[in-house]
Amino acid sequence: MNAEIIAIGSELLTPYRQDTNSLFLTKRLNQLGVEVIFKTIVGDRPEHLLLACQVALSRADILILSGGLGPTEDDLTRECVAQALGVELRRDHEMVTALYTRAASMRMRMAENNVKQADCIVGAEILKNSRGSAPGQWLDTTYQGQRRIVILLPGVPFELEGLFNDYCFDKLKAAMPEEHLATCELKIAMVGESTADLRAAKIYKEFPDIETTILAKAGEVQFHLKARGATQEAAEQSVEKLASLLEDEFTDELFSSGGESLEQIVGYFLEMRTATLAVAESCTAGLLAQRITQISGSSRYFMGGALVYSDAMKRELCGVPPLLLASDGAVSRSVAAALAEGIRQRCKTTLGIGITGIAGPTGGTSEKPVGLMYIALADGKHTEVVERIFPGDRERIRWYGTQLALDMLRRKLR
Amino acid sequence: MNAEIIAIGSELLTPYRQDTNSLFLTKRLNQLGVEVIFKTIVGDRPEHLLLACQVALSRADILILSGGLGPTEDDLTRECVAQALGVELRRDHEMVTALYTRAASMRMRMAENNVKQADCIVGAEILKNSRGSAPGQWLDTTYQGQRRIVILLPGVPFELEGLFNDYCFDKLKAAMPEEHLATCELKIAMVGESTADLRAAKIYKEFPDIETTILAKAGEVQFHLKARGATQEAAEQSVEKLASLLEDEFTDELFSSGGESLEQIVGYFLEMRTATLAVAESCTAGLLAQRITQISGSSRYFMGGALVYSDAMKRELCGVPPLLLASDGAVSRSVAAALAEGIRQRCKTTLGIGITGIAGPTGGTSEKPVGLMYIALADGKHTEVVERIFPGDRERIRWYGTQLALDMLRRKLR
Repeated sequence: MNAEIIAIGSELLTPYRQDTNSLFLTKRLNQLGVEVIFKTIVGDRPEHLLLACQVALSRADILILSGGLGPTEDDLTRECVAQALGVELRRDHEMVTALYTRAASMRMRMAENNVKQADCIVGAEILKNSRGSAPGQWLDTTYQGQRRIVILLPGVPFELEGLFNDYCFDKLKAAMPEEHLATCELKIAMVGESTADLRAAKIYKEFPDIETTILAKAGEVQFHLKARGATQEAAEQSVEKLASLLEDEFTDELFSSGGESLEQIVGYFLEMRTATLAVAESCTAGLLAQRITQISGSSRYFMGGALVYSDAMKRELCGVPPLLLASDGAVSRSVAAALAEGIRQRCKTTLGIGITGIAGPTGGTSEKPVGLMYIALADGKHTEVVERIFPGDRERIRWYGTQLALDMLRRKLR
Repeated sequence: MNAEIIAIGSELLTPYRQDTNSLFLTKRLNQLGVEVIFKTIVGDRPEHLLLACQVALSRADILILSGGLGPTEDDLTRECVAQALGVELRRDHEMVTALYTRAASMRMRMAENNVKQADCIVGAEILKNSRGSAPGQWLDTTYQGQRRIVILLPGVPFELEGLFNDYCFDKLKAAMPEEHLATCELKIAMVGESTADLRAAKIYKEFPDIETTILAKAGEVQFHLKARGATQEAAEQSVEKLASLLEDEFTDELFSSGGESLEQIVGYFLEMRTATLAVAESCTAGLLAQRITQISGSSRYFMGGALVYSDAMKRELCGVPPLLLASDGAVSRSVAAALAEGIRQRCKTTLGIGITGIAGPTGGTSEKPVGLMYIALADGKHTEVVERIFPGDRERIRWYGTQLALDMLRRKLR
């Protein structure tokens, strides 16, 4: 079965607010083997909401609507779903009593418009909401000859999550053909998306029954695998078979098959080898250190370092020879190496990283263009320096630089 | 005119990823007086994408699609939009050349599947993408007798934003009936959202015709004002009247009324006073420097500094007396002050910042709880130290610390 989620509320169509309920709902639906195939966000206007309901009923087996169940004039979800299904609303008298009781228990007089929340779509089951006033509704019905499960939930996240967990998960499970799902997530570093896909496609194409999703961000590609099987074991075996073939293909670039971030993996390796690290950052100016120290406990292996934005700081904090800066320029292979070894000695660590480059948008020349970066990794005996020209804007270039630095550490330590 | 935004990508239908491009697009569209009436999120399956295109074309004047323009087999936006409109794709030879040239300039061999990105919907104008390989496309066309503007943009946020700003905003403006809209954005630092709203509401409630939206993030509250008028002048006068009253109310906390970030404002002030800055960061470990250097040209006032995660580094790089560390502890008022003045002297700058604290989740005690932070600002004559206990998780606590440090700089320099 598949699902569409409709988030209702004009505030969700502003630049300032975003629907987040769908992330929770998707997670829970996926656990049942239900795939979310569409998400729609629509405002409080009844003609738009009606249209969204009709479209969703025509294309998804399960329709979950969040929001628009409150007492105000803008709350029209009940009305629009009923109209889309061609049925009426009935006022549920038990619910009316419950609303009055709830108000009384809070020592409040119930505002008259509140009673609207007792309107129930004919054929729907009421899902009592112990966390708020608006109840949810559950319908197992048909639309144009197709079976449809329609669920109305309030938009307040903790009410929605509560109602879904209390009622909907089990009811959906009971309504579903039994299924077994297994998933796996592989992450690789510093391979372009199209190159990664070219190399991976020849493998995952052999497994048409496993859903493979490729996700890319700067310097990282993720493969998300999902398999179904007659038993849980069969599903897991099938996903593991594809995963291990992909692991073989990307044996060099793969850094995680358990969901860990590159920062975490580098941290594990440093701890495992009881190694310590210091960094000297010029153009990335703290971004690498900040990423490394996002990990709680990073103080066990990360000692600190220097932010060497100016040439004076490169000399003063990392001991880069003034002659080197004058002859090769601050953005050079030799200065990166001197930064790495300089900060390593200064901080008395096992490893030192030095980064220098041109993040842009200004400061580039034809010889040293924007995006050029030198990244050095020193261990006291040997200093490795990598030169790269990264694409993108200032933020992306700096991110790439720190990603490559982390990947160099991973390769060194693994 | 109204718009629908379609975000394309199966990863956006997982519990892990969310479309954020629509927030940027909505902001820019609203500036043109265009209302977003639907947002749809759809995966990479062609039958679903085609359906989403058809539904959107039938109900919105402007259709903006993000994602699915890359080189992989999953990238099917071009194909599906063409099919929905009933037109063909043509391979644009100029674009093919541009793709090869781009690969060559990055000293890479182009993967063959990349050439797909030169496929152009017949009748569309190509929007050249200087930030990535996939170009955007712009169509001013009709669907079932209605005028429709269809815009295809890549999903990578900085590419999408660049293409929209470079081409689409002006093209949409030219295509639009004239309207008079004025907007203003006020930003204040280190005031809680509810306090800010309490103080602001008594003012903006007097201006019911001006749309006022309040947006809060850690350590920052923004007021977004929007007014319409018979003329541009009238709209601007009305928005300026409310803005100036709010500016009076928040005269101490207001840092921007022109959209600038706190990092930018601090940069302006430093340049204006020809002052220079160095930082010594312990628990924030580079986050402050990273934020300051997000601003292009920050090398004119930011010299560098020290990442002093370990006590040894506090002594070695900032000259913090060992006795002070032993008596007061690394997280103390006196150590923050010593870091600020130490790094200032070391880097020979006008100002020095020192930060020390407990970012958590571990490492807190009843005397020094998680979230405790000392931030010092030294100018050589005087060192100001602020103690705060910030709420939230590790990431939020570190963010708050850098936000307060920037605000201390702003107050010092204004």
